Amino acid sequence: MKVLVINCGSSSLKYQLVDMNGEKVLCKGLCERIGMDGSLITHQANGGKWADQIDFPTHTEAFAAVVAKMTEGEGKVIDDVSEVTAIGHRVVHGGEKFQASCLVTAEVIETIRELCPLAPLHNPAGILGLEAAKKVFGENVPNVAVFDTAFHSTMPAKAYMYATPYEYYEKYGVRRYGFHGTSHKFVSKVAAEVVGKKPEEIKVITCHLGNGSSIAAVDGGKVVDTSMGMTPLAGLLMGTRCGDIDPSVVNFLMTNLGVTGAEMDNIMNKKSGLLGVSGVSSDKRDVGNAADAGNERAKLVNEMLNYQIKKYIGSYAAAMNGVDVVVFTGGIGEHDDTVRAGVCTNMEYLGMKIDLEKNDNVHGDICEITAEGSKVRVLVLATNEELMIARDTKEVVEAL
Amino acid sequence: MKVLVINCGSSSLKYQLVDMNGEKVLCKGLCERIGMDGSLITHQANGGKWADQIDFPTHTEAFAAVVAKMTEGEGKVIDDVSEVTAIGHRVVHGGEKFQASCLVTAEVIETIRELCPLAPLHNPAGILGLEAAKKVFGENVPNVAVFDTAFHSTMPAKAYMYATPYEYYEKYGVRRYGFHGTSHKFVSKVAAEVVGKKPEEIKVITCHLGNGSSIAAVDGGKVVDTSMGMTPLAGLLMGTRCGDIDPSVVNFLMTNLGVTGAEMDNIMNKKSGLLGVSGVSSDKRDVGNAADAGNERAKLVNEMLNYQIKKYIGSYAAAMNGVDVVVFTGGIGEHDDTVRAGVCTNMEYLGMKIDLEKNDNVHGDICEITAEGSKVRVLVLATNEELMIARDTKEVVEAL
Repeated sequence: MKVLVINCGSSSLKYQLVDMNGEKVLCKGLCERIGMDGSLITHQANGGKWADQIDFPTHTEAFAAVVAKMTEGEGKVIDDVSEVTAIGHRVVHGGEKFQASCLVTAEVIETIRELCPLAPLHNPAGILGLEAAKKVFGENVPNVAVFDTAFHSTMPAKAYMYATPYEYYEKYGVRRYGFHGTSHKFVSKVAAEVVGKKPEEIKVITCHLGNGSSIAAVDGGKVVDTSMGMTPLAGLLMGTRCGDIDPSVVNFLMTNLGVTGAEMDNIMNKKSGLLGVSGVSSDKRDVGNAADAGNERAKLVNEMLNYQIKKYIGSYAAAMNGVDVVVFTGGIGEHDDTVRAGVCTNMEYLGMKIDLEKNDNVHGDICEITAEGSKVRVLVLATNEELMIARDTKEVVEAL
Repeated sequence: MKVLVINCGSSSLKYQLVDMNGEKVLCKGLCERIGMDGSLITHQANGGKWADQIDFPTHTEAFAAVVAKMTEGEGKVIDDVSEVTAIGHRVVHGGEKFQASCLVTAEVIETIRELCPLAPLHNPAGILGLEAAKKVFGENVPNVAVFDTAFHSTMPAKAYMYATPYEYYEKYGVRRYGFHGTSHKFVSKVAAEVVGKKPEEIKVITCHLGNGSSIAAVDGGKVVDTSMGMTPLAGLLMGTRCGDIDPSVVNFLMTNLGVTGAEMDNIMNKKSGLLGVSGVSSDKRDVGNAADAGNERAKLVNEMLNYQIKKYIGSYAAAMNGVDVVVFTGGIGEHDDTVRAGVCTNMEYLGMKIDLEKNDNVHGDICEITAEGSKVRVLVLATNEELMIARDTKEVVEAL
C-alpha cells in the first residue's frame, strides 16, 4: 500500500509518498506560492532534487504537478497514479467533532468548514487540499483526515475547560483543544517501545519544541493535558508567539498601543516569543548564538523558555502523580542541547537526571540521555508526523 | 506602639487598631458607601459592635468618624488620637518602584499615582486613603505604604517576564508582579516557625485561596514565582475571575460577542470563575452545596479549581527543585476541606500525603494535616494581612 501524505497551507502543499511496506519514503516535496507569482515545486526522489517554476493558480494545479512529478521524468517513483492507494491529509482543527482520524466524506468537509472560526488560517487551507485531491485523484481514492487535535481528545473536562462563562463553551466552542497531536502520539508510542513497556503502562511527558511548541501529559497512552489551548498561541513561548500571559494584558496593550483586537492577535502570534523578547530572531539557533555573544535579552528569553518547559513538566508530573519518561522532540527538542540541559538540571526532586555528556552527543532518531540512577528516563526522539499520518491513513482505509 | 491599619476601596475604608505590645487588636471596623447615600460605619471594640449611619462625602470624613469611634463613647479604645503612633496602609500596586514597605512622602504618593494604569481600580483608592489620613492625623503621624506586590519583587526575570515584545515591558511595565504579597509573606513566615526552621532553610508553596486566589513559590524566604500576573486576573480561576486562558480567547470572544476590550475585561473579572462556570454563585460554599446536590457544572468547576491548584504546586516544586511545606490559607484554603483533599490526594510522587481525618477537623489559626510518613508537610494557617501590615509599619517607623 502506498499512501500520499498531504499538508496544505493557504499557499503551499507539502507532500510525501510512503510505501507502507517497510514504511519507506518514496518521494517528498513542496509546492510554494500557490496563487501567487513565481510559484514553484521542489521534488525529492531517487537521490535527486529538482526545483521547477510552474504556474499554480490553485491547489488543484499544484496537485496535478505532484502527480506529474511522481509518475514522470527523473523523479518518477510510480508508473501510474492508480498506485496511490490512499491520501492522508493533515487537518489542524477537529474541534470536538473529530476524536480520531476518519475517511473524508462531503459531510466531513462540511464539518471541517464549520470549525473554521476556531482555526481561521489553517482549516480553510486543509479544505483546499481535500477538495483539490478529490478533483485530481477522483472519488475512488480514499482521502483520510488526520487532525492535529484528535490525540488530545481524551483530556478530561477539568483540563480542557476555561473558567470563562459556560455558555461560551456551548455556543462558540471556547475550550482547550491542543495541537501537534500527531507528533505527541508518534513520540509517545516510540517512547513506550524504547523503555520496553506498553503505552498503557507508563506516564510520559512529551515536549514538542520547534517553531511552534507544545507539551503533553500522556498517561497510559492517553493525553490528559496539553499546553496549547483553543488556538496554537497558548502555552510555551515560541518563535514568534507569546504563549501564556495574563489575559488582562490583551486589552491593556490594545488601549495603550491603539490597535484592534486583530492587530493585537497579530502581535501576539507574529511579533512575540523568541523574536519579541530578544529582538534578534525567531530562530532559536540565532538566539542561542546571540546569547553566547553576550546579548542580555537573548540570554533572558532562553532562560524563560527553559523555565517554562521545566514548570510544565512539573505541573504534568502533578497531574499524573508522577512521570516515567520525558521526551524531547521537534527542531529544538532534538537539536538544542542547551534547552534540554537547562530544563533537566535541578530536577532531582522528581528523580530525574540527565547525563550531560550524552546530552551533548545526541544523534540518530532515538537517543537516551538519562543519567545513571535517574528514576525518570529522558529520551530525545525524532518525530515523524508524516509517517504517523500515513499509518493512521492505512488503518482507516483497512478498516473500511 | 499603636498602629492603625487601613485598607481603602474606592467607597470603603477598613480599619484596625493594633497595640504592637502583644500584637493585640484594640478595635476594628468598616466605613461603607463613602460618597454615596446611606453611608455607614461599623465599629467593633471592647466586646461590642455598633453600626451608625453617618454622612461621608469623602474618605476624609470617614477617617474623622474612625477617630471619633476610637476616642469617644462605648467603643472607645484610646484617650486621644495622639496615641496612634503610625498608620499602615495597604496599597495594591507597587510596580517595580516599591520592593518593600516604605514611609509615605509626597513623592511616594506621586509614584503610586503614576502606577494607576496598572491598577486602575485599586491604586486611586489607596491614594484617597493616604491623603485623607494626612489631613485627619496631621503631618506628624507617619504613614507607611505596604504593597501587595512587594513580597514578590524578588522574582527572577525568567519568572516575571512575558514573551510579548520587550519594548512593552520597558514602556508600559507589562510583566508579572503578583499580589496578596502580604498574606504570602505572613503565612510563609509562620510556616517556618511551625516546622522549626528559618525561612532561609525551606522551600514553601503558599496557596492563598479566597475570593481572589494566588499561589506563591517561596524559596529560602524569597518569592521565586507567583500565579497572579500584571493584574490580579491571572493564575487560578477565582470567584468571578477566569484566571489563565489562551490569550487568543480575548479577541475571539470580543468579536463573537460584539463587546469592547473594557467589556471583555469586565466579563473576565466579574462574570467568570466559579460563577461563570457553575452558573450558581461566586461563593465557593454555594458552589460546594450545589455540587453536593448534583449540579454537574458546579462539580466541574470544583474539579477544575482543585486541578489547577495541583498543577501550580507541581510547577512550583519544579521551579524550586522540591518543596518542604505546602500552606493553605484564605477563606477557601482555611475552611474548605474538599479543596485541600482534592489537591493533596494522588501526590505521592512528590512525597506528599495528608491525613484525611485531620483535614476534616481543622480548627485554630495553625493546624497541620500532614499524614504520617509524608516528606512534604502540609499546613492550614490563618492569614493575617492586617497584622503583617502593622508589623511592617512598626519596622519602617522604628528605622526612621
